[in-house]
Amino acid sequence: MSRFDETKALFALPEGVVYMDGNSLGPLPRAVPGRLAAMVQDEWGEMLITAWNRAGWMAAPRRVGDRVGALIGAEPGSVVLGDTLSIKVYQALASALEMRPGRKVILSDTGNFPSDLYMAEGLVKSLGAGHELRLVAPEAVADAIDEDVAVLMLTEVDYRTGRRHDMPALTARAHEAGALAIWDLAHSAGALAVDVAGGGADFAVGCSYKFLNGGPGAPAFIYVAPRHAEVARPALSGWLGHEAPFAFDIGYRPGEGVERMRVGTPPMIQLAALEAALDAYDVVDMAAVAARAGVLADRFIAGVEAACPDMTLVTPRDASARGSQVSFAHPEGYAAMQAVIAHGLIGDFRAPDIMRFGITPLYLDEADIDRAVEILADVMGRKLWAEPRYQVRQTVT
Amino acid sequence: MSRFDETKALFALPEGVVYMDGNSLGPLPRAVPGRLAAMVQDEWGEMLITAWNRAGWMAAPRRVGDRVGALIGAEPGSVVLGDTLSIKVYQALASALEMRPGRKVILSDTGNFPSDLYMAEGLVKSLGAGHELRLVAPEAVADAIDEDVAVLMLTEVDYRTGRRHDMPALTARAHEAGALAIWDLAHSAGALAVDVAGGGADFAVGCSYKFLNGGPGAPAFIYVAPRHAEVARPALSGWLGHEAPFAFDIGYRPGEGVERMRVGTPPMIQLAALEAALDAYDVVDMAAVAARAGVLADRFIAGVEAACPDMTLVTPRDASARGSQVSFAHPEGYAAMQAVIAHGLIGDFRAPDIMRFGITPLYLDEADIDRAVEILADVMGRKLWAEPRYQVRQTVT
Repeated sequence: MSRFDETKALFALPEGVVYMDGNSLGPLPRAVPGRLAAMVQDEWGEMLITAWNRAGWMAAPRRVGDRVGALIGAEPGSVVLGDTLSIKVYQALASALEMRPGRKVILSDTGNFPSDLYMAEGLVKSLGAGHELRLVAPEAVADAIDEDVAVLMLTEVDYRTGRRHDMPALTARAHEAGALAIWDLAHSAGALAVDVAGGGADFAVGCSYKFLNGGPGAPAFIYVAPRHAEVARPALSGWLGHEAPFAFDIGYRPGEGVERMRVGTPPMIQLAALEAALDAYDVVDMAAVAARAGVLADRFIAGVEAACPDMTLVTPRDASARGSQVSFAHPEGYAAMQAVIAHGLIGDFRAPDIMRFGITPLYLDEADIDRAVEILADVMGRKLWAEPRYQVRQTVT
Repeated sequence: MSRFDETKALFALPEGVVYMDGNSLGPLPRAVPGRLAAMVQDEWGEMLITAWNRAGWMAAPRRVGDRVGALIGAEPGSVVLGDTLSIKVYQALASALEMRPGRKVILSDTGNFPSDLYMAEGLVKSLGAGHELRLVAPEAVADAIDEDVAVLMLTEVDYRTGRRHDMPALTARAHEAGALAIWDLAHSAGALAVDVAGGGADFAVGCSYKFLNGGPGAPAFIYVAPRHAEVARPALSGWLGHEAPFAFDIGYRPGEGVERMRVGTPPMIQLAALEAALDAYDVVDMAAVAARAGVLADRFIAGVEAACPDMTLVTPRDASARGSQVSFAHPEGYAAMQAVIAHGLIGDFRAPDIMRFGITPLYLDEADIDRAVEILADVMGRKLWAEPRYQVRQTVT
């Protein structure tokens, strides 16, 4: 049994479905229901309020932070869990802007996930006084980093195309210009061999419900480079980021290091699910996951290109230039994806015309990829997307 | 069987314990384990990503918001769930400040929960330009509301003493002075007969893990008065508060009404637990809960004062002037509470000397109150707090 057969056995996947949307919502790890039942009954139910100490709840955001941190090349003690990714983006941006007084520009790209841009837009409006969110095309980022830029904020992997930024190079370029770099690892953590410490990132953020399989609405994480951790002022200064939360002082004093990026009471039930999900990474390391993702993606690209000539690859062919997804453009992408899902292959659609497929080696193998190609060949070959039932738009996909 | 016998049967309370800390963390509702198991297996496990539509996840923050809203006198469609209470405080403050341009003062009191003050402090520092958090004693609030005040931000019930502010009167006073009023209902929602609409509140926020029994880290709620809902700019402008999240536009457009106060992906597992917990309020209404809380609190006060002369009541005797808790000061309060907990009565301690007991009629009855008094009489009468083992401080209580 290979290591990836072992990890595949850890997930409860529905019969007859190939799931290539783990980059939106990771599937249910088999360990989760039991872990949740135990946590809810034995900790919440029996220990009640005392579980914050006795069951280690209060320390969970840091404990789980270290487990996520190990997957992204973070120093121990530099990652903490909590809130949503949008909130963590805001925290990183607000702190970073203050660390570059006199500069007013947040630089990002038009391929960034919209919520990151919205949070930056919201912050810039609140701050006023000349602050600006400047957007350029992804390929124009390097040249747009100038001495006006306070913060470069990028998502490493484009959620539509799968194009991967060169994190170390762009971070170095930002630092040369005197700017800080914030990296959103939503589509990286648990998928790619990321090295935030080696790559020099100042801040990194990400979610845990995609490749990390923490469940719907699982908490986000934030990394603060240790060199900044005692300097960064948390704009969202909540009591659990206080140096002494249970002193109930009137005034705020930031906690030690990344602890100050905690805000309110952590979502313990979600954290318990995530903690169980992370056990999969005790079986395989990130280098092996990333390498195997490359092999599976190459196989999927070759299969689809051979079978579906009207699907146009938009993801880079070079594995080092892409994340762990493969996207194709198709003029009837929305309806086509509905038809594909109805035939047992779950991917997702991103406007305007992108059919997106997540490559998740923890539970996808060659047989799944081949089956996915078969389904695509059948559905696209028969142009099933033309059927009216697949053309009906739903609110969310 | 009385209605309150029915609600008591809905909770799984450990044998031999009287739980008077439901104002910190509500106990486990018996329905939760089954509901979580079903949600995790049938929705996350089987429906995977499609559960956002098919299982109604995307609408859950509003759906559950209406259920919480019904308990605080909110208009339908004016409450939404998500994030933590500290984040919701920040959202309300940031929006409200912008609605009173030219005014720079947030007025609050020294009895407010520290996290609310920390969030205000953080916002004021970010905004600069003369913004100020002004703190006065709770009894001095009414007189401190002047034409400089942009926003009055208060917690209705003092987390230490249980003193209850007069929400309608102070809100009216704020409005007369041209200010807006934000009410934190952390210790009110599910405990008191609150009427945010009738009382004129502009914004209200609260958590759902205390009297609402949603579980550790359950999401917070925010109420925006319908007259402001299309005006308030969300400073934390996340994608799920966007008018069309799945259009993935580059620019932010606020969603309809209170929807704009959504930020990131909702914590669906926590929301499922909360939704199950709220079923208790289908059995009894808030007026009955509040009335019975008054009766139980009076009984507890009378019993403790008769049995424990060295415990000094700090909660108002008048039921209309207090929340659903009873607090006593004792010079050895910390150790005393440890000893009391060891003898089967769970309350909590709040610095510097407060022994705090939550009154929660959904699962406490006269026999529990009498047993609590017995335990206190025994522990305090024997001065067990003097034993060294109870003097050892833990990080969290």
